[in-house]
Amino acid sequence: MILISEIFGPTVQGEGSLLGVPTVFVRTGGCDFRCSWCDTLYAVEPRFKSQWQSMSAGAIMRQVQELSGGVPLLITLSGGNPALQPLAALLELGQGMGYRFAIETQGSKVQTWFGQLDYLTLSPKPPSSGMRFVPELLQQCLQAAGSQTQVQLKLVIADEQDYQWARELARQYPDVPVCLQPCNLQAATPQEPERETDLEQLNASYRWLVERVGQDRWFDVRVLPQLHVLVWNNARGV
Amino acid sequence: MILISEIFGPTVQGEGSLLGVPTVFVRTGGCDFRCSWCDTLYAVEPRFKSQWQSMSAGAIMRQVQELSGGVPLLITLSGGNPALQPLAALLELGQGMGYRFAIETQGSKVQTWFGQLDYLTLSPKPPSSGMRFVPELLQQCLQAAGSQTQVQLKLVIADEQDYQWARELARQYPDVPVCLQPCNLQAATPQEPERETDLEQLNASYRWLVERVGQDRWFDVRVLPQLHVLVWNNARGV
Repeated sequence: MILISEIFGPTVQGEGSLLGVPTVFVRTGGCDFRCSWCDTLYAVEPRFKSQWQSMSAGAIMRQVQELSGGVPLLITLSGGNPALQPLAALLELGQGMGYRFAIETQGSKVQTWFGQLDYLTLSPKPPSSGMRFVPELLQQCLQAAGSQTQVQLKLVIADEQDYQWARELARQYPDVPVCLQPCNLQAATPQEPERETDLEQLNASYRWLVERVGQDRWFDVRVLPQLHVLVWNNARGV
Repeated sequence: MILISEIFGPTVQGEGSLLGVPTVFVRTGGCDFRCSWCDTLYAVEPRFKSQWQSMSAGAIMRQVQELSGGVPLLITLSGGNPALQPLAALLELGQGMGYRFAIETQGSKVQTWFGQLDYLTLSPKPPSSGMRFVPELLQQCLQAAGSQTQVQLKLVIADEQDYQWARELARQYPDVPVCLQPCNLQAATPQEPERETDLEQLNASYRWLVERVGQDRWFDVRVLPQLHVLVWNNARGV
């Protein structure tokens, strides 16, 4: 059984190299991390467990099929940390129906079924998150993905220290596509679900990042905002 | 010789599937179209010809190299309509130095050197542009690209009629990736270079497009905004 926080869509992917691709989100509940700027605490903290549902692969796919009118599309597995869940059966069932799967995970938990995914987005957390980065686990995640799964590193950048960390990490994995994403420091929280983010500040962070990679002549990278935040602000379920 | 309106960067690509990729823009002067909502009239109308420069491939690459510190990156050829210019020598010279080339053109003019490009973005213009769409020319552009060049259709959508036109066009080219882009109806103009666009209206158009493709279960498409407009508004040179 899989612990689910929410299933919604179709909307579009708002982050990383699949930006703008229509997708249904399947958000799992539970996380091994507590990032300082987490924007989905309702899918992370155990005190929200009563809002999560334990669902079978079949039940999840029925709900996705209903949302997508039975037309296959990209399913995005997010969390929390979806790599904590047993997802092999879901992948097999959905792919048999023509759906494709992308996962968003921090790379702290390795699963053999990473190799079944169509897309694996690894988001190791930078210093500003307050979390410890374990390079060996990231390495194991990349190995588990194998050659059939499209992998990207998506690195959230809040400040210069994060940027330097990302630059160094990217140097260690010259063959893995890297995407930098400015950090939303004013995400909605369970205490303040209606909190609006400061778009001017977010845009300023984005412009800074574009300048920063330009100064370093770091050209084999992508700099992408959280598109859904620019367009829907901190709203949930889009 | 190549007629150049401006060369600037490094910045990031703000449109289409290469969104967020660091790039230098090489904008040519002159266009065979006059789209109703054109956002680069200063590179289109002959009355600005005195601001354009006739440059050799070598002179262009020297300027690009200076901007990029000699580190190869993606060069985006835009306009006006860059397909009106003789660009084969520029491609050969730049690629020999390790640079890659993307072009943005409406598909009204076919060039044999399309097959030399790394990326070809074809933007046939929808009904709201006021321009006539000639399917045969688009077909010839696709053929000229061959199999080595990555092609995408980037379709600007201002209203439902544009959307229906795009939907039909995409059906005719099931193998070509399609990107939909909401139209900026309040672009800066030579008369009003400081004109600010209405970001709320642009975001509303984007949300409408996301809903629209969802209603149609049109899932093998991407919906992307003009990122540079969201981040820099109508500013020129970014």
